[in-house]
Amino acid sequence: MKKLEDTVFAIVGLGLIGGSYAKALRNRGAGRVIGMNRNHIVSLMAKNEGYITDIADDQPELLGEADIIICAQYPGAFVPFVRDHVKYFRKDAVLTDAMGIKGDIPERIDALLGPEMDFVSAHPMAGREGRGYGQSSSRIFEGANFIIIKRPQNRRENVEWIRDIALEIGCGRVVELTAKEHDSIIAYTSDLPHIMAVSLINSESMNEQTKFFVAGSFRDATRVADINADLWTDLFLLNRGPVLAELDRLETQLQKWKKALVTEDRETLHRMMDTAKSRRRDMFYGKH
Amino acid sequence: MKKLEDTVFAIVGLGLIGGSYAKALRNRGAGRVIGMNRNHIVSLMAKNEGYITDIADDQPELLGEADIIICAQYPGAFVPFVRDHVKYFRKDAVLTDAMGIKGDIPERIDALLGPEMDFVSAHPMAGREGRGYGQSSSRIFEGANFIIIKRPQNRRENVEWIRDIALEIGCGRVVELTAKEHDSIIAYTSDLPHIMAVSLINSESMNEQTKFFVAGSFRDATRVADINADLWTDLFLLNRGPVLAELDRLETQLQKWKKALVTEDRETLHRMMDTAKSRRRDMFYGKH
Repeated sequence: MKKLEDTVFAIVGLGLIGGSYAKALRNRGAGRVIGMNRNHIVSLMAKNEGYITDIADDQPELLGEADIIICAQYPGAFVPFVRDHVKYFRKDAVLTDAMGIKGDIPERIDALLGPEMDFVSAHPMAGREGRGYGQSSSRIFEGANFIIIKRPQNRRENVEWIRDIALEIGCGRVVELTAKEHDSIIAYTSDLPHIMAVSLINSESMNEQTKFFVAGSFRDATRVADINADLWTDLFLLNRGPVLAELDRLETQLQKWKKALVTEDRETLHRMMDTAKSRRRDMFYGKH
Repeated sequence: MKKLEDTVFAIVGLGLIGGSYAKALRNRGAGRVIGMNRNHIVSLMAKNEGYITDIADDQPELLGEADIIICAQYPGAFVPFVRDHVKYFRKDAVLTDAMGIKGDIPERIDALLGPEMDFVSAHPMAGREGRGYGQSSSRIFEGANFIIIKRPQNRRENVEWIRDIALEIGCGRVVELTAKEHDSIIAYTSDLPHIMAVSLINSESMNEQTKFFVAGSFRDATRVADINADLWTDLFLLNRGPVLAELDRLETQLQKWKKALVTEDRETLHRMMDTAKSRRRDMFYGKH
């Protein structure tokens, strides 16, 4: 396992997540970060800013110098990219990704890789509103949860390597779980809040005047409604089973509210809020 | 219209909002702020910190020295307080409040006041998670929207006075509208986001492990789930008609999501998200 300074990274896709990886790695002392991006202007900008050291856009063979290849494209672009570029990879390259949906993608990637290559699938639970390199920031990783997909076919030393890098760039916690567990948990903790934000701001109650009457609750509840539709259409469709299950559970809660309001059931309203308050505090500040 | 330094304020209820008023007014140079609170310890603390100059808890006659009385109690306590204490008020006192629900409360207060007194009902759209004096902060007003209820019975100079004070403590914008308009807009911009936050964290998907898998979207979406159940039970019940209408509109949006996911309707998903993104950006950054 090489030290960060000596590890050669390649980052494919210099968007919000890929760009943030480049910035975080270089800020922490990575000596060499090869960047590759669909839009060449972005690569030039990242190189100009010093966050990547080499551009592979027109020189895919540069990928062959990377110890670790971080794939940060959209879900739909990942498998085709590996299929078309695996011929350039080092024979013992370690691949990782940052996708918010796993499904059977890890196994589809495995099938494309050479025998000594290893795909350690990961999901840094980091992000922010907006999209693209311009929104990227090394700080999105600070204290973030970092998920590694538990797969028997991975070599332990490679899993440890990815884990150490996650901690090095500032992540607070690394958790391992299966692809299936990942997708079902993410449907609740990430997909559902995004749907709720979009639904709130898309309500027919929204109008030109609304902005004069918002306070922090509405602002926070709609922050991620500033969403990257290209990326998230992929994510939602690939995870639609678990997402539909989460929508049903949300519905159950909203029905309880309706019933309590219609029947003026003060006790139930109070109890639902007390439960929520305790859960929120336990979650972010620990039991007390 | 007196200057801030020369105006004598009374603040009744030194909780999150009342405490924040005391801090903001004193920080901006108010010379005299009389505080009154159910729990005497809080009054002592506020006086010790210099955010109130006098305590009226055992000396309600002190209220008679106030030019402006800011009532920042819970909705259920407001009318009884005025009924019991109007005898102490200056004969030309200006009353204001901070309640998130209006209904017919302004008229009920009018009926209790002397002929030269004036009730300018207001709602600073400011707050934060948690409750109580300990959570109060002068900063909650910074850039906030401040609503004044438009009522023909108010004297214009008193409305201007309250308006100037709102701007003085940092509010960004003062808007006037009727009680009915207020309640229906607030059901959307404030009540609904609070219900959504509570519902998200109360979902049966929530468990001890959830905290390992949250990113910013879940954190923001549940911030106000740390809710003051005593206060909000009053608010929700007093505004239940408009709140139920908002729940129906939210439901309409969630049904669109379900349908699009079930039918794998990529275009509709993309369009819903694009609409949300534009709305969010227009709302917080203006048309672009």
